[in-house]
Amino acid sequence: MKQNSFTTMKWQHNCLCLLNQTLLPATIEYIKCSDYLRVIMAIKRLEVRGAPAIGAAAAFAVVLGAQELVRSHQFSWQKFLAVTEEIKAARPTAVNLAWAVNRMVAQAENYRAETTALLKQLEQEAMSISSEDIAVNRKISEYGATLFTKPLSILTHCNAGALATVAFGTALGVIRQGFQEGRITRVFADETRPLLQGARLTAWELMQDNIPVTLITDNMAGWVMKNKMVQAVIVGADRIALNGDVANKIGTYSVAVLAKEHGIPFYVAAPLSTFDFTIETGSQIPIEERLETEVTTFGNSEVAPKGVTVFNPAFDVTPNQLVSAIITEKGIIRAPYSREIQQLKNEG
Amino acid sequence: MKQNSFTTMKWQHNCLCLLNQTLLPATIEYIKCSDYLRVIMAIKRLEVRGAPAIGAAAAFAVVLGAQELVRSHQFSWQKFLAVTEEIKAARPTAVNLAWAVNRMVAQAENYRAETTALLKQLEQEAMSISSEDIAVNRKISEYGATLFTKPLSILTHCNAGALATVAFGTALGVIRQGFQEGRITRVFADETRPLLQGARLTAWELMQDNIPVTLITDNMAGWVMKNKMVQAVIVGADRIALNGDVANKIGTYSVAVLAKEHGIPFYVAAPLSTFDFTIETGSQIPIEERLETEVTTFGNSEVAPKGVTVFNPAFDVTPNQLVSAIITEKGIIRAPYSREIQQLKNEG
Repeated sequence: MKQNSFTTMKWQHNCLCLLNQTLLPATIEYIKCSDYLRVIMAIKRLEVRGAPAIGAAAAFAVVLGAQELVRSHQFSWQKFLAVTEEIKAARPTAVNLAWAVNRMVAQAENYRAETTALLKQLEQEAMSISSEDIAVNRKISEYGATLFTKPLSILTHCNAGALATVAFGTALGVIRQGFQEGRITRVFADETRPLLQGARLTAWELMQDNIPVTLITDNMAGWVMKNKMVQAVIVGADRIALNGDVANKIGTYSVAVLAKEHGIPFYVAAPLSTFDFTIETGSQIPIEERLETEVTTFGNSEVAPKGVTVFNPAFDVTPNQLVSAIITEKGIIRAPYSREIQQLKNEG
Repeated sequence: MKQNSFTTMKWQHNCLCLLNQTLLPATIEYIKCSDYLRVIMAIKRLEVRGAPAIGAAAAFAVVLGAQELVRSHQFSWQKFLAVTEEIKAARPTAVNLAWAVNRMVAQAENYRAETTALLKQLEQEAMSISSEDIAVNRKISEYGATLFTKPLSILTHCNAGALATVAFGTALGVIRQGFQEGRITRVFADETRPLLQGARLTAWELMQDNIPVTLITDNMAGWVMKNKMVQAVIVGADRIALNGDVANKIGTYSVAVLAKEHGIPFYVAAPLSTFDFTIETGSQIPIEERLETEVTTFGNSEVAPKGVTVFNPAFDVTPNQLVSAIITEKGIIRAPYSREIQQLKNEG
């Protein structure tokens, strides 16, 4: 299985290097985060984005935060927990953020009094989260590709690619794998307003790997389906509830409704770290609302009248009834999701 | 009934002044078209857009074309017809363009040999098309407003406003009227990629008239409906077939599917000049495809990787089954549309 051809993040000499996703595709530039606040800033600014990538970046932020406390002789368990809470609060919707930080805290708990061992342990755990993410994506991709028994075109929304993870991607991982196996021949990428992750990131990522991609505006998805130009949809997820409701980038819900109308399967690819086993339904998922300027400006251009009222939710929730299957590293699950997800929870 | 507070087009001293819609909302600037080729260019460049506005502008283009032929002693019926064909070919989807030009040609036919009378007649006919458009929009608006029996929020796509017509608007005419009567309290405007007529034109137009508007990206429409933030949808049209299939700005079809999913009525407001009585179904409507750069760039910003493949249809077709009612100047028609539209054709 081929790797994708670029690096999303890298841990080197106590520094987290993040590919600055706000500058793509025009500029390839890495941000060097040598303190945890810079990582939080990168998460808030979407310099790093995508639920699994946010999780991994947050894990390294915990390492950096602990290092800073120890270095300045300020380390206490309470201060450490305060740092982890600060990291968890960077963005509200993707549950991988809290999942990764909680995992780091659980690991640290055994070393409260031995800071040298603690730092080593934290670094190791962050490296594990990072390398497990790649392995998980490869499993997801292998399972996912089996869904496509004859060559087809597929539509995706936003970016659930190598850029949204440590490498390879979830939805785009399945696409990468499916393309290598000759099961997927073309990808239609929704541009994904307001921040254009589809145009800037997905189209770029697929072109890097020579996978045929056609870029469309979000409002063309229905017409593309109506004209039978795609035979399946696959997206990633930011949080999945116990009943299989899926929070993902705004616009995902509309795509799912359109897929149902056209009898097209709607697949979600996500690791177990994206499941929130503490909530029953998607209605309990906090939906981040972001700045109005994301909608009123386009690149450097203002595109709306000054002072206009804007509604800018960054995510929406797709009810489980619209989801044909969820592809995880443990296999493909289908309705009734509650039972299947409960089982994943118990196994975990 | 209050007029909208700006002028979309004006015929003055043998010159057609067009509000340059590509510069809105940042700049209010009029283009002075004193020859018919400049009008064609304005239509092609979308400096004037919206089916009824294109029709009216085309009528004045015919006047200018005839004036040029007469002035240069080149007038012949054949050359005149060639000019009208050139005007008709400016854009393919909105049928009002051909409708207006054909009406001008029919008027001219009685004056083939008397160029002075012909020019006078043509100018009068263009003025009639223009003033009739305003009267028609007022009728549409009055009929349309009656659809809303209790105050509600409404969603619209693209711009079917005063800017898309000579004045007042079709879909936005209904909204203007409904707002004045207290039946409509807020408008959700889809920004309408790629050219952002919703953000740049509809939001601006409604703010000019102090009608509350909330701007959203196209992919938020489903989520807005899911959250019960709108109770109806209204759009304009570029061409309506005998069976009631509606061609309108790309994205309209997706909105119609979403409205159906949420049990929300989906209304189309359009004058009779938008009906194409020569075609049975929407599948016969030519769908204009436009430049890839509309999708890959905005203003001065490139937002997609160089060389990416793009699909950029400017319109889509909403099948009649998704249309709750069509509001015309003759009243409100509902399914079965074939019978109703046949009757409109026979009356016309």
